[in-house]
Amino acid sequence: MSQHVVVIGGVALGPKAACRFKRLEPSSTVTMIDQSALISYGGCGIPYYVSGDVSDASELCTTSFHMLRTPEFFKEVKGVDVRTLTKATKIDREKKCIHVEDMTTGETSTIDYDKLVYATGASPRKLNLPGEDLNGVSYVCNPDDATAIRERISQGKVTNAVIIGAGFIGLEMAEAYSDMWGVGTSVVEISDQIMPKLVSPALATMAQKHMEENGVDFYFGETVVSIEGEDGCVKRVVTSKRTLDADAVIIAAGVVPNSRLAEESGLECAERGGVLVDEFMRTNDPDIYAGGDCAIVKHLITKDPFFLPLGSMANRQGRIIGTNMAGGSARFEGVVGSFVVKLFETSLAGSGLSLEVAALAGFDAVSVLLVQFDRAHFYPDKELMTLELVVEKGTRRILGIQGFGSSGDAMVGRINSVAAILKDEPTIDDISNMELAYAPPFSSAMDILNALANTADNVLQGINRGVGPDGFKELWEQRESGKSYFLDCREVADAAEYMKLNPDHWHNIPQGKIYEHLDEIPKDTSVVLLCNTGARSYEAQVLLGDKGFKDVINIQGGMAAIKKYGVKF
Amino acid sequence: MSQHVVVIGGVALGPKAACRFKRLEPSSTVTMIDQSALISYGGCGIPYYVSGDVSDASELCTTSFHMLRTPEFFKEVKGVDVRTLTKATKIDREKKCIHVEDMTTGETSTIDYDKLVYATGASPRKLNLPGEDLNGVSYVCNPDDATAIRERISQGKVTNAVIIGAGFIGLEMAEAYSDMWGVGTSVVEISDQIMPKLVSPALATMAQKHMEENGVDFYFGETVVSIEGEDGCVKRVVTSKRTLDADAVIIAAGVVPNSRLAEESGLECAERGGVLVDEFMRTNDPDIYAGGDCAIVKHLITKDPFFLPLGSMANRQGRIIGTNMAGGSARFEGVVGSFVVKLFETSLAGSGLSLEVAALAGFDAVSVLLVQFDRAHFYPDKELMTLELVVEKGTRRILGIQGFGSSGDAMVGRINSVAAILKDEPTIDDISNMELAYAPPFSSAMDILNALANTADNVLQGINRGVGPDGFKELWEQRESGKSYFLDCREVADAAEYMKLNPDHWHNIPQGKIYEHLDEIPKDTSVVLLCNTGARSYEAQVLLGDKGFKDVINIQGGMAAIKKYGVKF
Repeated sequence: MSQHVVVIGGVALGPKAACRFKRLEPSSTVTMIDQSALISYGGCGIPYYVSGDVSDASELCTTSFHMLRTPEFFKEVKGVDVRTLTKATKIDREKKCIHVEDMTTGETSTIDYDKLVYATGASPRKLNLPGEDLNGVSYVCNPDDATAIRERISQGKVTNAVIIGAGFIGLEMAEAYSDMWGVGTSVVEISDQIMPKLVSPALATMAQKHMEENGVDFYFGETVVSIEGEDGCVKRVVTSKRTLDADAVIIAAGVVPNSRLAEESGLECAERGGVLVDEFMRTNDPDIYAGGDCAIVKHLITKDPFFLPLGSMANRQGRIIGTNMAGGSARFEGVVGSFVVKLFETSLAGSGLSLEVAALAGFDAVSVLLVQFDRAHFYPDKELMTLELVVEKGTRRILGIQGFGSSGDAMVGRINSVAAILKDEPTIDDISNMELAYAPPFSSAMDILNALANTADNVLQGINRGVGPDGFKELWEQRESGKSYFLDCREVADAAEYMKLNPDHWHNIPQGKIYEHLDEIPKDTSVVLLCNTGARSYEAQVLLGDKGFKDVINIQGGMAAIKKYGVKF
Repeated sequence: MSQHVVVIGGVALGPKAACRFKRLEPSSTVTMIDQSALISYGGCGIPYYVSGDVSDASELCTTSFHMLRTPEFFKEVKGVDVRTLTKATKIDREKKCIHVEDMTTGETSTIDYDKLVYATGASPRKLNLPGEDLNGVSYVCNPDDATAIRERISQGKVTNAVIIGAGFIGLEMAEAYSDMWGVGTSVVEISDQIMPKLVSPALATMAQKHMEENGVDFYFGETVVSIEGEDGCVKRVVTSKRTLDADAVIIAAGVVPNSRLAEESGLECAERGGVLVDEFMRTNDPDIYAGGDCAIVKHLITKDPFFLPLGSMANRQGRIIGTNMAGGSARFEGVVGSFVVKLFETSLAGSGLSLEVAALAGFDAVSVLLVQFDRAHFYPDKELMTLELVVEKGTRRILGIQGFGSSGDAMVGRINSVAAILKDEPTIDDISNMELAYAPPFSSAMDILNALANTADNVLQGINRGVGPDGFKELWEQRESGKSYFLDCREVADAAEYMKLNPDHWHNIPQGKIYEHLDEIPKDTSVVLLCNTGARSYEAQVLLGDKGFKDVINIQGGMAAIKKYGVKF
């Protein structure tokens, strides 16, 4: 039985659902409408176009075999009818038709449907700041925005760029601007770290430091009060604490689902917006499907409704909708919230819950940080990778993992390996024993992921007791109090620099010599143990524990983490 | 209660078990013996020392913080007593002691134990060839072998190297030799492909072609009959089909577990060697543990006993043994057989079963091959990756995955993500929906892994019917038979080269134009559809199917796979 499917929205999910359905039911017809002129573009590529990595904006609108994804392409190659500049104004669920308006002529008409896909995406969150309309202020939204942003740069109009928001798009845009010679780039963020809630303060600070070294300035805990201009062009951004010069402003304060039309049509939506769907991606109307950035999904760890506007999820959901409209019963269970963002030569990634979000969700959790080489320590091209594992205390359940490192693919590979099992409530043991492919050019014999879980095991067993680089910083800043005895248990040559810088507060006994020098270590203060990455200091902690030292703190990640984090000595 | 633990074997598992136990029970004592002078070296690093990637052999014997892992190091830093050049000759389970012989003096003595760890590793499989003892013939076994091999090269004695065996070590050694200027390198392999049983003929051929382009010659289906020399030095390798000049010969025909002493002591062993252990890594004697290369594990997919001599597994098992000797109950369930090998600029990796092994294990399986970019197609630094998924037909269960590609970390990351779930009997849907971290520098919106599972879904549903590059080669070689109509459905410009080369057999209708040119396509022969990667040809197959064409074959992986595989046009 031939059907007519109508798709509202022509980016990511819409085209995927349309084409998948059409392949399964070649004799049915599909009409896809979009209110803009451009469809099926890779919006996630915009920062890379601005930076020049992608040379032509049209590349964001082509297939992998260089064909422009135009309405003609969809008709000819995919058999899908596309009407651009066509806005849906009403869904008449009783008559099973949608009302549309031609954005060019203003003409209205209706389109009947057997099945409808609601794929309207999301829009940038508006801050409604005075001056938002000034020339040079932009929401990063579609290829047209990108073209305008890049034109302004290439015309030499941009000396200072200010980014509002330190989330994915904000950071990617900050890199894009800062990578260009002569553009001073600042990021203003209302919270006190980059990627708030997604990664720990420790990982966020490491990434921030790397971006600062690449010329990006950060202003945390500040809100933007207004944007000021001259002759219609942006000139300054005024925050709650300062005024920043700006010839270009990017507002990247998140996105909100475009679910108003759905709501007006009686489709169930979340309180804060976003269409609600079941595991088959159906709305409360069995003939209407929704997905992508306009829909709400289930978080498989918190079990709460979750908003995850990601092109990857939209594509996977699109296929499921296409399958189900053709009589299938494919399921989308929910998400664990995997993410990655490239920041100059490093990347920040994660899956599941950060410690902060785990606590907010009611878990009694702890996080463990580990720094280790990403491949065999004797292999020449290796990098230190930092991973953080979030674990529920009583159950030993893994709630999340986050990472920072310079070998992006290697780090993301570890995150993905954990992401793959997160929904099945894995415990520490599942990662301790995870069987990653091993060869010296790719991993250590005890891979960092296995070692991370082993560390978490030791922490939960109470035999590895410590804090990360942020905890060390606090202790170090109070060094004059005399409450802590800082003991560097690396070899003498490694510790020398710090001994010289801090003769009063820095002590050094190599781990292998501690037994001989026990009486030099005070028993009445807290002993803070440091080594390169936290492995030897853990062994020293075990030894001291065995010799009756009770208050011993191991610095997780050691000097490697501290250096990446940045502490003044 | 203090215990005395004795460990037989000082590489990988032995030291790991010893140190882990000592950290958990600092007041207990550990004695580790080894029959050789060197202990705790990274044997897997030997090929990288031979190639010069690792500059000094001592690097294979150091910790990540550059300390030599000598007996003194183990004593001072780990609290473990080590006796090198000490050979265990007997395990007296009744008296709970081992008999040892000092390899230097010949003196014998006994060492009592409360718990014993049997960690004797594996030895190279001997081929007992005439001439094996000649100077220049080597088994790659320990750092001393490596030093000898490299010395010979640096003395200018090696013009031609012959490697016997195309498994991990053979291929790594072939790369090591061939990477050196002026050394002609040949590999002789008894079966008809590299990495037999581990990867499909298609992936094996792609990797072989890459190695050939880097100067390695391969001789398949040949056995070595003898090794010939002059003045005590190797000069030639005689195979069943030819004679190869050789100044250096590496015998890399696999390894066999060193389980004889265990067997003689009444510890249960597998018929073909290898100590049997339970999930706590205990032998049939509850006070004796075994693991690493001398033990047999359970394959979690076939459920059969499996021999997996890998340093990574040995390390994970070592920790488990250490934990359990200290009263813990850590488990090692078994393995799925993850692996990776770097071959010049490419890598070959996998986990679970290849199609061949799946069939041998009684599964009714099919494999699906996909070639796709490893990151967004608009992102500049991208590479084509080839993945193959092995799926059980009726149940849609994933049995294994293998891959070949030049961005190693990215490819290994995908393999590991599947490896992480393999033991839990995942189905196609689990990989279709796998939530990998997404950003254009790291993956496509529809990641290759998701797309691979989607392709498998389409194949099992019968809507994508095709063969891989090996299947194409067969069809193409029979092109004169007229049984196949080769239809390139790429754009005219892409197909032009092949149209010119093969005017009689190559036809071209771009996918979007097929509908208009249906009457040009014969209905009485098999239509073989090709595009760049198999995606457009799949769409063309759907269209032709809808128009009544019954015998249509889609070439999986398309021209990208064919080029990597190598077919003469």
